[in-house]
Amino acid sequence: MSAILVNNLPEQRMAFGEAPPSERKRVVIVGGGFAGLAAARALRHADADVLVIDRRNHHIFQPLLYQVATAVLSPAEIAAPIRQLEAKQRNASVVLAEVTGVDIASRTIEAFAPGVGVRKIAFDYLVVATGMRPSYFGHDEFAQFAPGLKSLSDAETIRTKILSAFELAATTEDESERTRQMTFVLVGAGPTGVELAASLAQMAKVTLRGNFRRIDPAKASIILLDAGERVLPAFAERLSRRVTKHLEELGVKVLTGVKVETVDEQGVVAGGSRIPSATVLWTAGVAASPLAKMLGPKTDHAGRALVDPFLKVANAPGVFVVGDAASVMQDGRAVPGVAQAAIQQGRYVGRLIAKELKGRELRRPFRYFDRGNMAVVGKNYAVLERGWLRTSGFLTFLVWAIVHILSLPQLQNRLRVQRQWLWSYFTGQRSSRLIPEPPRMPNG
Amino acid sequence: MSAILVNNLPEQRMAFGEAPPSERKRVVIVGGGFAGLAAARALRHADADVLVIDRRNHHIFQPLLYQVATAVLSPAEIAAPIRQLEAKQRNASVVLAEVTGVDIASRTIEAFAPGVGVRKIAFDYLVVATGMRPSYFGHDEFAQFAPGLKSLSDAETIRTKILSAFELAATTEDESERTRQMTFVLVGAGPTGVELAASLAQMAKVTLRGNFRRIDPAKASIILLDAGERVLPAFAERLSRRVTKHLEELGVKVLTGVKVETVDEQGVVAGGSRIPSATVLWTAGVAASPLAKMLGPKTDHAGRALVDPFLKVANAPGVFVVGDAASVMQDGRAVPGVAQAAIQQGRYVGRLIAKELKGRELRRPFRYFDRGNMAVVGKNYAVLERGWLRTSGFLTFLVWAIVHILSLPQLQNRLRVQRQWLWSYFTGQRSSRLIPEPPRMPNG
Repeated sequence: MSAILVNNLPEQRMAFGEAPPSERKRVVIVGGGFAGLAAARALRHADADVLVIDRRNHHIFQPLLYQVATAVLSPAEIAAPIRQLEAKQRNASVVLAEVTGVDIASRTIEAFAPGVGVRKIAFDYLVVATGMRPSYFGHDEFAQFAPGLKSLSDAETIRTKILSAFELAATTEDESERTRQMTFVLVGAGPTGVELAASLAQMAKVTLRGNFRRIDPAKASIILLDAGERVLPAFAERLSRRVTKHLEELGVKVLTGVKVETVDEQGVVAGGSRIPSATVLWTAGVAASPLAKMLGPKTDHAGRALVDPFLKVANAPGVFVVGDAASVMQDGRAVPGVAQAAIQQGRYVGRLIAKELKGRELRRPFRYFDRGNMAVVGKNYAVLERGWLRTSGFLTFLVWAIVHILSLPQLQNRLRVQRQWLWSYFTGQRSSRLIPEPPRMPNG
Repeated sequence: MSAILVNNLPEQRMAFGEAPPSERKRVVIVGGGFAGLAAARALRHADADVLVIDRRNHHIFQPLLYQVATAVLSPAEIAAPIRQLEAKQRNASVVLAEVTGVDIASRTIEAFAPGVGVRKIAFDYLVVATGMRPSYFGHDEFAQFAPGLKSLSDAETIRTKILSAFELAATTEDESERTRQMTFVLVGAGPTGVELAASLAQMAKVTLRGNFRRIDPAKASIILLDAGERVLPAFAERLSRRVTKHLEELGVKVLTGVKVETVDEQGVVAGGSRIPSATVLWTAGVAASPLAKMLGPKTDHAGRALVDPFLKVANAPGVFVVGDAASVMQDGRAVPGVAQAAIQQGRYVGRLIAKELKGRELRRPFRYFDRGNMAVVGKNYAVLERGWLRTSGFLTFLVWAIVHILSLPQLQNRLRVQRQWLWSYFTGQRSSRLIPEPPRMPNG
């Protein structure tokens, strides 16, 4: 990806074969995630053309991505076509393209669409909502061995890795290889690492029970590693301890204060010793997508753009960063990179722009309202922290389930996820145990 | 794929790290489709070890594969893990491997499993149920431009092609390219071609309505080509005519008696003239998987193994071919390559082997009981032919839907497909409109 603009292209007010230019202002929103779509929706009554650009055709409900990775849900169940925005919102249009550059001075972005090529697109307002991607802390060579979990294809890659490991464990004639195939290492004990580890443990113990005659899937070792002091560092210490205890009851080995030194084809080296493992999953660091950097403002250690309290980029009028790609400080603390914050930021910027379009000004800076933090640990157990309130257990699990069902993008998703959950809950079965491609042959 | 055996490998009675050999006879079933699984189930009380080998980990319900290709259903909704057979049937085991050769004389097959390599596996009985794959009548170079529809990954490839074509049509600035992107050519007007064409027409007209501001998806041209005289040649002429009329009402252009001469990146040349099209789908020929040929018997024009009335291969005691890979004649006509026939053949051979294992003999040759032939054409319309009975219309559509729901492999699939159908039926929406990967950039 390059930030250099292709300057010999004609500057186009309208992108990619759109209708002739109107006199209206154009708001370009890059990214159809929580923040981007919230911004678009907040502009639905605005007198402007809203253009949403995403390199994927679907919005995903990221908080449940780990359940696609563990075969509980199918990819489509947590996804919705971004394009449906065109049917719902008269002033919005959607383009499937990858933004490759931005030029604040000329107020254009540069985007690549397959079959068309690279085009410059002019904007009056630009909302960057490109989110995060896995970060390997300078060790990009780990990526090929330890996939992160950010997209549906990541989730399918992980699902294939997990299911294939059990198959290979059953097929191999070598005892140490069998152990390696049945060892799963998750690097990073934040919410994704914890939820994935617990879900994987449940799958090995319950879903796969009786499905393998030659191995006992329940004997799989699931190891959750973190360099930090404790799991779920964003939660209170008491909840961390409870979660650790709960993970251990599920059979997950929790190793905190352990730094991963190497990830390779054979497994990981952590805390000085090698753990042979065929399935290493990266649930540790994330870094902002490169576009945040191209805006030119200062960025924090994770590449997030530092924005002012109005989510504006310094010296770039009309340019905003929202969601995970933005580094927003509030009361001396960073606003967390969670769905709630992304939605609130997107909505805020949408409203701010709508007001400016009417010639007015929004004086109130962005303020994150923390509705609480939740994480689920397997079946029947979740933790919740909201201000002074700290709860855990079965009731919290029910709250978690209800909140997540209600937050899903479309009615269709809500009905489907609810049914899949009830099914899995009562049968222990998982409905998406697919390894899509046949094993690769040595010569074709 | 090679038929040459790796003779320096030790002959193994047990495959791929299985438990120590037992004294029981071993039945090896290659293929976990309708025929293979029916054979395995018919052997559930037999005093034998039943080994099912498949290169994929899932069984699929092929009659609804076209609905995965058109985003009505998700892949997992028509799939079930073959491995669950181990949980259900005590004498069965399942291996994920690709069979690469067979040696009748030494009564072994050769299979490749990833992470292990190639192994020889001895059998007492061998049931080949490897099905069919798309055939391009000697023009294998068409394959890269015109995918066939045999596996879940084929269905996802076609779904991506269809959805991407509409996106590209909306993005391009070139009028003739837009027309090419909005032209869909289906080669082959058998049941798959007809059902796929109708489903695609409905998607363009109903599902995508309002989703594109720059194009009108309803104006897509969907062309169904066939070299033969009429669509659905397996049905009575009267039903063919009705189906053609119905397809035309849906906006599908039916061109029969037209031979496809070339398929390339730009489209097809058929009947002497070029049709520019970005999406050419191959629903014409199928050929038996190579394993059927390796058995050494005579094969028919499509590579199907000619078997005797007991589905046995000549001069190969204990070797059977069942399902689409077998060419079975009955009353001077070939038994059709449909799910019903595959299930009946698999069950027959399973029972025959079970009887032989008890020292008895099954004297009754295989007899196909034709439960009727059905095809659905979009919403509310299907045709059915069973003996003298020929019906079409809405009631037939209901019968089609009920029969297909009841035939799905697991309760889970039945519930999910039923719900998806009700949802699509009443809302016109399709729930799996996913293009999994972002557009490829010119340089990474």
